[in-house]
Amino acid sequence: MTVTRELKGPIIECVPNFSAGKDMHIVRTIANEIDSVSNVKILDVNADPDHNRSVITFVGTPTSVIEGAISGVRAAVRLIDLRKHKGVHPRLGAADVIPLVPIRDADMSECVGLARKLAKRIWDELEVPTYLYGEAALRMDRKRLEKVRLKGFEQMMTLVKKDKSRRPDFGGPALHPTAGASIVGARPPLIAFNVNLNSGDLALARKIAEAVREKNSGLVGVKALGLELKSKRCVQVSMNITRPDIVSPFVAYSKVAEEAEKLGIDVLESELIGLMPLSSLLDSTRDAVKLESLTMDRIIELKI
Amino acid sequence: MTVTRELKGPIIECVPNFSAGKDMHIVRTIANEIDSVSNVKILDVNADPDHNRSVITFVGTPTSVIEGAISGVRAAVRLIDLRKHKGVHPRLGAADVIPLVPIRDADMSECVGLARKLAKRIWDELEVPTYLYGEAALRMDRKRLEKVRLKGFEQMMTLVKKDKSRRPDFGGPALHPTAGASIVGARPPLIAFNVNLNSGDLALARKIAEAVREKNSGLVGVKALGLELKSKRCVQVSMNITRPDIVSPFVAYSKVAEEAEKLGIDVLESELIGLMPLSSLLDSTRDAVKLESLTMDRIIELKI
Repeated sequence: MTVTRELKGPIIECVPNFSAGKDMHIVRTIANEIDSVSNVKILDVNADPDHNRSVITFVGTPTSVIEGAISGVRAAVRLIDLRKHKGVHPRLGAADVIPLVPIRDADMSECVGLARKLAKRIWDELEVPTYLYGEAALRMDRKRLEKVRLKGFEQMMTLVKKDKSRRPDFGGPALHPTAGASIVGARPPLIAFNVNLNSGDLALARKIAEAVREKNSGLVGVKALGLELKSKRCVQVSMNITRPDIVSPFVAYSKVAEEAEKLGIDVLESELIGLMPLSSLLDSTRDAVKLESLTMDRIIELKI
Repeated sequence: MTVTRELKGPIIECVPNFSAGKDMHIVRTIANEIDSVSNVKILDVNADPDHNRSVITFVGTPTSVIEGAISGVRAAVRLIDLRKHKGVHPRLGAADVIPLVPIRDADMSECVGLARKLAKRIWDELEVPTYLYGEAALRMDRKRLEKVRLKGFEQMMTLVKKDKSRRPDFGGPALHPTAGASIVGARPPLIAFNVNLNSGDLALARKIAEAVREKNSGLVGVKALGLELKSKRCVQVSMNITRPDIVSPFVAYSKVAEEAEKLGIDVLESELIGLMPLSSLLDSTRDAVKLESLTMDRIIELKI
């Protein structure tokens, strides 16, 4: 971002996930290319070597955020070869998931329009086929990210050839040979929150993830995967809290800790990928100390 | 406050504690008299019937904050008769403790000067003797509030007659017959934080308070009392966290919960009296979910 860091008017957040988390040169190059676009501001860059994945959080005006995303995807397509990519997190594309989030003076319908424009441009300009998910999905069965990505690149390379219903929304039908396909969407803010466990047993992490996720009558809006972190010699419950208005990071943490305790293992630490809203800080503290009356106007700086 | 709610320039916080918490007419009258002063802003009013005590948090410019405090004390002297006052929280005055806290563009030395001015005026204008404590103390042995207040009004009424070293800094030697004495001071921000326990046994609450407080190798900067809340049919560990930079509300809560568990009792809920700083919200969440990397710039609203 070269012109001004103080953004005026509507602000959209974009949180692209790239399939590079070991080679920091690649991660930095992608971030720099996003950052070189006018009127975007990078808020956070997170790279995980075990996931072999990075999450870049940036904001911008509606026009600039699309330019930032295109620049990031262009760099990812140039630098990442999925045929050689190994990581414990599922992925379909070099630029894997690209959600747009309304942050200020913008609504979901605007993000939906932008996501569809972006998905079309990624195919038109970079020849990477795209799927639309979340609020921007064109088909009901593509609303949920995991229903689009399935087991990822290797599986989908063959599936798109056999099963017409799996074909991309823009481009294809074949995936890009090295960059796969990108999944572009619009969604409300979510919190990417991982809890690392004092165990190396992937089966246990998967069992806990199962108990935590909404699908299996766990926590509302929580998606969870059990993953192995070789670099940290431990396993992880990797979560997306998609209803942070209902489930705070503390509640998600406690549920994991509780399920872990049943299996005789402890929590090591947790990780926040990207950012979380202020309300989740408030909710976590309220939940953690049973302080029902805790609201924003009990915080000195917010009250003065 | 009649003129403007947007305060410019230096801001001082004043958190007077008044010995009225059952009769809401008295609490409201005191708050209204403070609020009628120009350039002060009331942030919070908390009244507790068991403590029979209220805590009013307000901010103002250096000049106006003193006028606000004087107005509050004047009303308290008029409306409260300590001879008839019963409550579980220790108290020496109708207006008991009056701390000044630097909040914005002001430092401790300014608050010390203001506290001494205020203490003199309370004696000169309202004939209530005053002690100075905290950073504003004139004697080393009056730095700690509890060393000044001892067991409170009834005990001090006789002590000041017998023991010269107990005499007020301004006025006296006798205390005011109905309003006792006020303890004026300057201090850094603190968090008044109480944890209510699922028990009616005051001895247990006192035992937990003992284990928690700094004095007995508990938590740094934590003062704690065991109190009985008849209206809630439970007991309470009432704490001041005087080093919120070191001990978060979550850490204090956890220590109480841990000590309570040893005694076979549970935590019911916690209470925040007045306000807490944003950093304590962050620290509590960080501590509660073991998220070492949580800093202010991981919070969306603070980062944009």
